[in-house]
Amino acid sequence: MTNNASDWSQPKTSTALLTDQYELTMLSAALGDGSAHRRCSFEVFARRLPAGRRYGVVAGVGRLLDALPRFRFGEPELAVVSEFLDERTVDWLRDYRFSGDIDGYREGELYFPGSPILSVRGTFAECVLLETLTLSILNHDSAIASAAARMVSAAAGRRMIEMGSRRAHEESAVACSRAAYLAGFTATSNLEAVRRYGVPGAGTSAHAFTLLHNTVAGPDEAAAFRGQIAALGLGTTLLVDTYDITEGVKTAIAVAGPELGGVRIDSGDLGVWARQVRAQLDDLGATKTKIVVSGDLDEYAIAALRAEPVDTYGVGTALVTGSGAPTAGMVYKLVEVEGIPVAKRSSHKESRGGTKRVLRFARPTGTAVEEVAFPADAPAPESGGLIAHDLLVPMVRGGEVVAGLPTLDEGRDLLAQRLVSLPWEGLKLSHGDPAIPTRFVG
Amino acid sequence: MTNNASDWSQPKTSTALLTDQYELTMLSAALGDGSAHRRCSFEVFARRLPAGRRYGVVAGVGRLLDALPRFRFGEPELAVVSEFLDERTVDWLRDYRFSGDIDGYREGELYFPGSPILSVRGTFAECVLLETLTLSILNHDSAIASAAARMVSAAAGRRMIEMGSRRAHEESAVACSRAAYLAGFTATSNLEAVRRYGVPGAGTSAHAFTLLHNTVAGPDEAAAFRGQIAALGLGTTLLVDTYDITEGVKTAIAVAGPELGGVRIDSGDLGVWARQVRAQLDDLGATKTKIVVSGDLDEYAIAALRAEPVDTYGVGTALVTGSGAPTAGMVYKLVEVEGIPVAKRSSHKESRGGTKRVLRFARPTGTAVEEVAFPADAPAPESGGLIAHDLLVPMVRGGEVVAGLPTLDEGRDLLAQRLVSLPWEGLKLSHGDPAIPTRFVG
Repeated sequence: MTNNASDWSQPKTSTALLTDQYELTMLSAALGDGSAHRRCSFEVFARRLPAGRRYGVVAGVGRLLDALPRFRFGEPELAVVSEFLDERTVDWLRDYRFSGDIDGYREGELYFPGSPILSVRGTFAECVLLETLTLSILNHDSAIASAAARMVSAAAGRRMIEMGSRRAHEESAVACSRAAYLAGFTATSNLEAVRRYGVPGAGTSAHAFTLLHNTVAGPDEAAAFRGQIAALGLGTTLLVDTYDITEGVKTAIAVAGPELGGVRIDSGDLGVWARQVRAQLDDLGATKTKIVVSGDLDEYAIAALRAEPVDTYGVGTALVTGSGAPTAGMVYKLVEVEGIPVAKRSSHKESRGGTKRVLRFARPTGTAVEEVAFPADAPAPESGGLIAHDLLVPMVRGGEVVAGLPTLDEGRDLLAQRLVSLPWEGLKLSHGDPAIPTRFVG
Repeated sequence: MTNNASDWSQPKTSTALLTDQYELTMLSAALGDGSAHRRCSFEVFARRLPAGRRYGVVAGVGRLLDALPRFRFGEPELAVVSEFLDERTVDWLRDYRFSGDIDGYREGELYFPGSPILSVRGTFAECVLLETLTLSILNHDSAIASAAARMVSAAAGRRMIEMGSRRAHEESAVACSRAAYLAGFTATSNLEAVRRYGVPGAGTSAHAFTLLHNTVAGPDEAAAFRGQIAALGLGTTLLVDTYDITEGVKTAIAVAGPELGGVRIDSGDLGVWARQVRAQLDDLGATKTKIVVSGDLDEYAIAALRAEPVDTYGVGTALVTGSGAPTAGMVYKLVEVEGIPVAKRSSHKESRGGTKRVLRFARPTGTAVEEVAFPADAPAPESGGLIAHDLLVPMVRGGEVVAGLPTLDEGRDLLAQRLVSLPWEGLKLSHGDPAIPTRFVG
């Protein structure tokens, strides 16, 4: 197994109907009036970050580039769209493949309000069809990675297990595991993410296994622990809070001895219990037994446990729901037609016309200062002694995904570097402004 | 196309890895110590509703029953789990199919805190494996349907188009469309939901199409409208807010004449604009032209527009994010082992042991009064002159999905009936208690 985004064993089904109907009716109208073949440029950006967030994390690019070649209309897809489309449009779709160019921010890159994280160029017809699929993937994965990165910061180096699958759509869950790993989580409970993306797997036992060892004579926690250790070895983590935590820990060490790998606490005041259980374990000689805590943790709860003897955090609901921001709110906007910048003027929904390039400027120490977007055909702004990072990298050329794009592990490393580059306020959990400003030139 | 949940053309891939690793390690331990074959009963319930909500809507049952027969381990799935499982467990999984019984609340049924909406019975081994998949589907779809139902109530009979796909994971989006339709939405923008579930499709045009008709001479909204009408006919809906709404409406009627199907407003103060545009349309003789509004609508914004001349609401982000509650928070708990009720005693996470049945009592007028859960082997509580509805209906027997379960359309009808049965406070949008209490007996 590898972490290469394109290496997964799900059947390569068509992605063409993961699309809003209006993209196809627009196509029909554009083919009819001759505007379909105009050269266009679309950009993806977020108008704002979720309230109080200081940065966003780009995620999903690998999944998008995997879905793109499968955006083809076979006969089953054509049968659906021919219900509302004219024959000319259906014929055009039969031969459709995207043949344009895409540049984008790499996975794991930071973004800020207005950052054009994806630039899609080609004819109107070929670009307009990709709107929904592109946004679905980037909005979902970026929302999860952006929340996950804050949790990883709050955990300050401790192990993080993503265990939120049960609180998310079953396929969204797989993408959540991937995004969490990108953001620095250590492992996932989700086996499909293990298969598809090579994310390390984790998990040992639930309350059900302890409750299963219940007879007419009553509960038998020791029997459950013996069964688990026999199957999974002394390195396993025993769940000690089914009945009484102090009794559970005592039973765990009585059964396993002081070499037990870990205990998990999933309820109660986790800080209080972590301290108490750590003392109890140490008293019992189990000084190396790890403490795993789980149960409604979010970035704030994780941060609040920083002074406690917690070794591993298990995070579920807050991760897969983006900790209050389940979608990144990115939009896919037409910015240029045949070289002419275009922009709508609806109130509060302005977009900035023209294809753009973006540089992020950093001090020689590495600290980011600002992001500057400027017309792609204009000279780059002066750096003024700062170091410039070109953020939009070629991803698709002539419809083909370019070779050598970052793997998931490389994206994970990139994000870790980028977080270090933020001004120190940028990593604060409290509400604030974007960590660096974005300036639009020209 | 039909609305039958099992009629969709996606390849029938294995769902077995949409699972948390710990279910498989528990299986291994239980096979090892002989507890795997104990007769068990698991129940799915929500400990609480999202803050202030008065009811929840059960959704996803059809999807779950479609996924269940595909919960099989083929060689690709076995290769993944053999990385961490012993050979005996892998061999057991090779032959796995669920052979137990499932009863559940029907899709479209209401639920309240504690309602055991699904009862899964069989050996520990066969039931424990289904936890994650079951919860993923029910938690996601019920969260969306529960939010959608409130929006439909707020819309008071007006047309509702679900258009949130771009704000959700691409597969979650399809399930969101399905859940919204279950809850009473009229149509969806999502073409895969049209294909898979027979939800009516909708959609005409975005700002990009208007902006596309931009030349060196400047914008040409009239050309865009002409192109759209030529392709889609006079019944189409023109998007009039790309530049100036009043000008847009004027141009729309100039191009289309008073028989134009509709205009859409996607920005600005929707109530003010709806009134102004209605007056303008009427002045222009376009008295039957409908007004569609969209743009960050949630149930409260929809309700606030009740007095305005809006014909159709388009709802996106708030729908697919469950309007602040993106997951239903249901759990899957072991409640009985070999006839013995079991329950954990962790603080604040108590569960109620024993397999249950549930009756909902209603007055002869149809108004629901309370839900009563009681031991499945005990006699039903006295009705006291009320009408009793048995809520847990047989869904799977001996591993086979029973015939004749409600279709998506039947679930939609059921929910519409059930909402009428709530005490009137139950339909209020404001925060409050569950509409009816749930009582646990015995």
